[in-house]
Amino acid sequence: MQISIQNSPLYSDLLGDEEIAGFLAASTEICAMIGVELALVQAQSDIGMIPESAGAELAAALADVEPDMEALARGISASGVPVPALLAELRKVLPQELSQWLHWGATSQDIVDTASMVQIGDCLSLFGTRLALLLDSLHAQSNTHATTLMAARTRTQLATPITLGLRLAQWAQPLIRMERQLPALKVDVLRVQFGGAAGANTAVAPHGPAIAASMANALNLTNSPPWHTDRSGVVALSNWLLQICLSLSKMAKDLMIMSRSEIAELTAGKSGGSSTMPQKANPIQSEMVVALGTIAQALHGGICAVASPVEERDGASWTVEWVLLPQLLVTTGCALRHCLVLADTLLVDRLRMRSIVDDNSQLMAEAASFALAEHLPRTEAQALVKQAAARGLPLPQALSQKLSQELSQELSQELAKCSQIDLDWDKFLDPNLVCAPCIQISEAIFSSRAG
Amino acid sequence: MQISIQNSPLYSDLLGDEEIAGFLAASTEICAMIGVELALVQAQSDIGMIPESAGAELAAALADVEPDMEALARGISASGVPVPALLAELRKVLPQELSQWLHWGATSQDIVDTASMVQIGDCLSLFGTRLALLLDSLHAQSNTHATTLMAARTRTQLATPITLGLRLAQWAQPLIRMERQLPALKVDVLRVQFGGAAGANTAVAPHGPAIAASMANALNLTNSPPWHTDRSGVVALSNWLLQICLSLSKMAKDLMIMSRSEIAELTAGKSGGSSTMPQKANPIQSEMVVALGTIAQALHGGICAVASPVEERDGASWTVEWVLLPQLLVTTGCALRHCLVLADTLLVDRLRMRSIVDDNSQLMAEAASFALAEHLPRTEAQALVKQAAARGLPLPQALSQKLSQELSQELSQELAKCSQIDLDWDKFLDPNLVCAPCIQISEAIFSSRAG
Amino acid sequence: MQISIQNSPLYSDLLGDEEIAGFLAASTEICAMIGVELALVQAQSDIGMIPESAGAELAAALADVEPDMEALARGISASGVPVPALLAELRKVLPQELSQWLHWGATSQDIVDTASMVQIGDCLSLFGTRLALLLDSLHAQSNTHATTLMAARTRTQLATPITLGLRLAQWAQPLIRMERQLPALKVDVLRVQFGGAAGANTAVAPHGPAIAASMANALNLTNSPPWHTDRSGVVALSNWLLQICLSLSKMAKDLMIMSRSEIAELTAGKSGGSSTMPQKANPIQSEMVVALGTIAQALHGGICAVASPVEERDGASWTVEWVLLPQLLVTTGCALRHCLVLADTLLVDRLRMRSIVDDNSQLMAEAASFALAEHLPRTEAQALVKQAAARGLPLPQALSQKLSQELSQELSQELAKCSQIDLDWDKFLDPNLVCAPCIQISEAIFSSRAG
Amino acid sequence: MQISIQNSPLYSDLLGDEEIAGFLAASTEICAMIGVELALVQAQSDIGMIPESAGAELAAALADVEPDMEALARGISASGVPVPALLAELRKVLPQELSQWLHWGATSQDIVDTASMVQIGDCLSLFGTRLALLLDSLHAQSNTHATTLMAARTRTQLATPITLGLRLAQWAQPLIRMERQLPALKVDVLRVQFGGAAGANTAVAPHGPAIAASMANALNLTNSPPWHTDRSGVVALSNWLLQICLSLSKMAKDLMIMSRSEIAELTAGKSGGSSTMPQKANPIQSEMVVALGTIAQALHGGICAVASPVEERDGASWTVEWVLLPQLLVTTGCALRHCLVLADTLLVDRLRMRSIVDDNSQLMAEAASFALAEHLPRTEAQALVKQAAARGLPLPQALSQKLSQELSQELSQELAKCSQIDLDWDKFLDPNLVCAPCIQISEAIFSSRAG
Repeated sequence: MQISIQNSPLYSDLLGDEEIAGFLAASTEICAMIGVELALVQAQSDIGMIPESAGAELAAALADVEPDMEALARGISASGVPVPALLAELRKVLPQELSQWLHWGATSQDIVDTASMVQIGDCLSLFGTRLALLLDSLHAQSNTHATTLMAARTRTQLATPITLGLRLAQWAQPLIRMERQLPALKVDVLRVQFGGAAGANTAVAPHGPAIAASMANALNLTNSPPWHTDRSGVVALSNWLLQICLSLSKMAKDLMIMSRSEIAELTAGKSGGSSTMPQKANPIQSEMVVALGTIAQALHGGICAVASPVEERDGASWTVEWVLLPQLLVTTGCALRHCLVLADTLLVDRLRMRSIVDDNSQLMAEAASFALAEHLPRTEAQALVKQAAARGLPLPQALSQKLSQELSQELSQELAKCSQIDLDWDKFLDPNLVCAPCIQISEAIFSSRAG
Repeated sequence: MQISIQNSPLYSDLLGDEEIAGFLAASTEICAMIGVELALVQAQSDIGMIPESAGAELAAALADVEPDMEALARGISASGVPVPALLAELRKVLPQELSQWLHWGATSQDIVDTASMVQIGDCLSLFGTRLALLLDSLHAQSNTHATTLMAARTRTQLATPITLGLRLAQWAQPLIRMERQLPALKVDVLRVQFGGAAGANTAVAPHGPAIAASMANALNLTNSPPWHTDRSGVVALSNWLLQICLSLSKMAKDLMIMSRSEIAELTAGKSGGSSTMPQKANPIQSEMVVALGTIAQALHGGICAVASPVEERDGASWTVEWVLLPQLLVTTGCALRHCLVLADTLLVDRLRMRSIVDDNSQLMAEAASFALAEHLPRTEAQALVKQAAARGLPLPQALSQKLSQELSQELSQELAKCSQIDLDWDKFLDPNLVCAPCIQISEAIFSSRAG
Repeated sequence: MQISIQNSPLYSDLLGDEEIAGFLAASTEICAMIGVELALVQAQSDIGMIPESAGAELAAALADVEPDMEALARGISASGVPVPALLAELRKVLPQELSQWLHWGATSQDIVDTASMVQIGDCLSLFGTRLALLLDSLHAQSNTHATTLMAARTRTQLATPITLGLRLAQWAQPLIRMERQLPALKVDVLRVQFGGAAGANTAVAPHGPAIAASMANALNLTNSPPWHTDRSGVVALSNWLLQICLSLSKMAKDLMIMSRSEIAELTAGKSGGSSTMPQKANPIQSEMVVALGTIAQALHGGICAVASPVEERDGASWTVEWVLLPQLLVTTGCALRHCLVLADTLLVDRLRMRSIVDDNSQLMAEAASFALAEHLPRTEAQALVKQAAARGLPLPQALSQKLSQELSQELSQELAKCSQIDLDWDKFLDPNLVCAPCIQISEAIFSSRAG
Repeated sequence: MQISIQNSPLYSDLLGDEEIAGFLAASTEICAMIGVELALVQAQSDIGMIPESAGAELAAALADVEPDMEALARGISASGVPVPALLAELRKVLPQELSQWLHWGATSQDIVDTASMVQIGDCLSLFGTRLALLLDSLHAQSNTHATTLMAARTRTQLATPITLGLRLAQWAQPLIRMERQLPALKVDVLRVQFGGAAGANTAVAPHGPAIAASMANALNLTNSPPWHTDRSGVVALSNWLLQICLSLSKMAKDLMIMSRSEIAELTAGKSGGSSTMPQKANPIQSEMVVALGTIAQALHGGICAVASPVEERDGASWTVEWVLLPQLLVTTGCALRHCLVLADTLLVDRLRMRSIVDDNSQLMAEAASFALAEHLPRTEAQALVKQAAARGLPLPQALSQKLSQELSQELSQELAKCSQIDLDWDKFLDPNLVCAPCIQISEAIFSSRAG
């Protein structure tokens, strides 16, 4: 049992993500906050609120600043926010005439929220890249397996044949939705926050909106009225991340079932060994993705729980975001990373997969009943097929009465009508018939990807 | 303690919603499912898969059908889904030649999911109407109170003055986001579901997509590939509903604070009496909205928890949606209904609100420090103001040295510099200065509402 | 999609519970509240605070009272609590001299919370009965299957043999914990609540504690100081209910896996049919139990979310309990009811179960490595067994070198050492060896049941 | 925005806990796992399963082992569990004849779960200490403020007077429950886990139970049958931790209200400054405790979500505990730490607190109505008092008709009856009357603490 396991060197390959961790490191956070302070000063310089040169001079003076981490820690402990201590550190290296232009008209939340958006922007770009690669891979695999027959399972039971290509396309479907929403999400969520003490920009009136617009432009964020009390953007982000994790979890759960010892239709990802059972090959990457999906739900729950902050600033609510949102980003990054490996290392045992279809002719029961329904009332057709299936008889033989005499006699009465129907059962019960409609749907799904 | 309290005649005004309950009644559900079955038949008639007249004849034959509820209950208990029993009931009143065309190539989930989307569509339309009315009301109130000064509170403490108009605009901000997203949400989420047994439309190949398109058109839904295993639309809906509830909860929490006995800046909604304290006037509608926000979070949590269904149909996951999603719809409806009343019955005590601003001159501390900072280094200015504020002195007098001799002496050393600065404190510390920037932001917020 | 589906006549067999619904009906709630009011009056009569006869006279006068439900609904809507309206209804049928003794020194929460505890007490008794029956059944089944060999699965992979009896005992283990905790839970949680307006019993001082004690005695509850602001009892109850649901969900999930088409080791409960696939036999009761487990988690989440109520009464928090707790009780009742059926209808295919053990000799890989380790260093032994298992060879033959010449040659080098070891592989790899330790553990588990 | 903020040097005083972090450090985890392995070997030595000296020799050989962290990281990444890599590291420093006795008959989960219980035991002991100190402090403060009058608030409104002592006792009440449950919780939850590959102890049969008993004894844990599939102990622990956090959150929420600028009845803990508002004194420690309560709920939700693990080991479920449970421990530790400071730094403004009682005579409305009810029917009495209160009149004067002529005239008609009642209003409306019953209840609450 280890604290901060997702950020532990021991466990980060399993449960963390080094690239995302880089975007969310202490040094990155400080850097992002300084960047926001400088963008603020530059905006005010440009507008003429403060000396024209202040922006550039401050940027130069703070280029190599290295705040004392112990002093920061003491300051955060004292004020509950990182900004006052950070400002004190920055002012240490600044001449007073420059120092005073720093943080003019801003409040801690402006800096923290805006810096977070810059950091989140980096995470989202990486997620976009990984998502696209994953969808490319799923698309390619879906094409590869466009005619790989497999048994669909509904409610844990063998249902009808489908293709593996269709299942892969269905894994992709929710992810395509997420990919499609990403550009709008970025514009909607990655907003500059600049409201001053209580969100009214009174200290810089009437320049508040112009400063915000300028900062947004410099930081590659969307311009916005202050949103300190409106956390719906944060929840929208959290929801998008969760949906990624949940969609990946569905894929991983299916992989875990398909790679069960008794099913063994495929393997994917690394095989984990056991400390005592020599033969074990555990689907650990799929398991991690499922675990990450559950973790993401828990974190999302906490983020939603603080989305109704009171009054103009709600410290108890805001702080919860600081704890949970970075974890949700790492969780999402890790799940995407594992799934890229899973998709790329899919090792399908086509023979095994096919044999499950062939050995279970009840998979064709629906097809048989529709075929019979051309000649008999449909409910009667269904009842007949149900009887044959219930006895575990191979459907083609049962329905065509090509059974051993003994079995035939038993069934003859009920199936009398069938025997008089001249159906080409081989044709009607050919599972390959499902390939065409599966391809139709798979293509429809992937065609909804942009560009 | 009562079961199904949100649907109880005793509590429904408090915690339920009769209009939404109507869209989600047993009879409406059955009606919606029959409607989907008929749309399916009509689509197949139009395509020529089944006799051209079958659609119209079935619609006529089932126009007045009243399924036996006890038989339905038995059937649902037996099969875990309502469709087989419903079909059996419908077939009772149909001649066999018509009966067989019913439900051709469909599976229970096609009917249940699509019917749900029809019912949800009705709910969303009502929510759209209520949301627009609420935003109209908040906008009007925000205009009315564009210059009503009030004390902003950050982290529970008096911060700086703002206007009530700005706070009202901030309540609206997340709701405007939700209103803006509604049209796209409807298109994205309200999709026809038609996939057949395992989502491959094999029994009607190659007509699956054409049938789905025709059904979508008839039912006013979006055409879609089968989404039985992709619940991201359901989660998107759940998230939108939750965000409404959470945004309303923020408004209600603020109202509860503002109507506290010690603050008493306003009242809104009904006043609940006590069984033992004659003087009580409880803010019950605000409380209910906050309660509904918490309930919505719990329900949303459950809906997210089943968004990774396994294989081609996951009965254990799917059923959870049946239980939680209707409650979330009622919860949202109820919260919107209460908030309409709250917004329309806002009774503001402007004098009281203003007196809090006037009696707490430390609200102007930030303004004072910025004013002083024109003449002194800013950190020094802040320190001076902090001293005066810490002693609870009225800032204008303290800073202008217009204090009793005793106090003046005490402070004289520290404030020596101030006394030499000739500032028009009445001007700099006039709280009305905040009105203009507050109006600027409020207008920016409301201007983002579509046409 | 239907509102209040757990209380719907159509779905209640599937997702509700009629007995629990009876304990939580509107009429039961009213009855319980009147019962608490009468217990209060009687306690005050006994103490001599009010006329000695008041208690009996009020009980007689209210014996057949039938409050007007519409008036109650209006009153609940007006005050946000049911008590003022209920008192008004009761007073209608009372002479004024009696009427005044009603509700003396009590507040709404006293009545509602105490009445809830009475109702919950009835539910807990029923749960205790069902839990005992279920554990009896699991115990009996565990004994029946004490030597029924099955393959244990860890991380989705075949692991080693165990007995079905052990798995059944493990299903029981958490439930035994819950059963053991029930008596203490009842004493701890089912408390009288009597605090008056703000929890200080000032209106009846110094008789508060004596009245509470008397009420507790009359209502079969635990005496307690007022706990209106201390919801830890409610959370403890919610946690116990959740733990029941989660433990049952584990059992149901295992049943769903074991009854998968490809595994088919057993069936349990009703088989649900499909609307289109004649052969389907869905494990709907197991699925419902899993669904109920997820629902219980969502409800529990909401109950925890309001366990930090502010000040002396927090209307927004309290109301959430009214909505979620009754549902959690019904959910638990339903899950227990289904599991009783599941346990009693367990139909085990012993042959099939055994054949999975026999056909997968890698299940004995751990045993083989321990046997070899008597003769070789253990890591070497494990490596050898891993090799044999990786090739999919039957372990006894591979390790005893009784393989076809071809295979033998391939392996001979690696397994050279083995061939020189004279081990009675039939003995060491006899899966029946696991029965004894499995019985040992099963008995230890069940022996922890009281009495 | 920073990853693992609860374990960050910058934020750990605010949101983390260094002592708990020490119990959950990587080195502590490894140490605990080695300790479990050694306890296992020693147990087997004692029983005679392996050479008598093996236990002591291994303990000596591994006394100073320092596993290569990079190798561990690689191994964890490869197998998904830390044990195989740790064993490999340990074996590097062991002669083969000793090495083979390591981990005999155990599986990874035995080591990880048991080691976790050892680590959790350390955390629980610390929590017990902190809880006792906090309750001592609350008890002392409750005594100190046994007669400090304050206004109770119900549903945000002034209700009746109580004492601060009672409110403090009510904060303590749920914590006393938790303190009382701690010893039993330790016995119930801190169990040895030893089941071997699939929980049947087959590799060491029939010694499994004896080994487990011996290990439990050595590690100061409770003996138990294997509980790898029974996570109800983990949930019980999580629930206890959550209940601590939620109870502390209630205290902190009340403190935040009481220290609001407009109420200002007290301050507690550190005052956080603002980056822009010189006057601000934010209740940051209370805010952190509330934030931690929300975080704890989210984490608990995730832990409950994996309490129904499938089959004999469910990797996806188990891993979630690794991530969330340590965080919940740190969260609880941090909340307790802050609350100790809050309780010890409570600075009550008795005058201010009292003045709210004196300035709001409607707080005595209930008392007045009960006093009048001695002379008038109670409903009439309540109505009269309600009228007076509604006009905002001081109750004693209004009810004794000692009002200005003008007001008196207005009210004379309604209050005619009152004026004829000769009540000693000063006596009946003396708020000090509440002290005695408040003390009665406070003492009852604290008396339930164990000796």
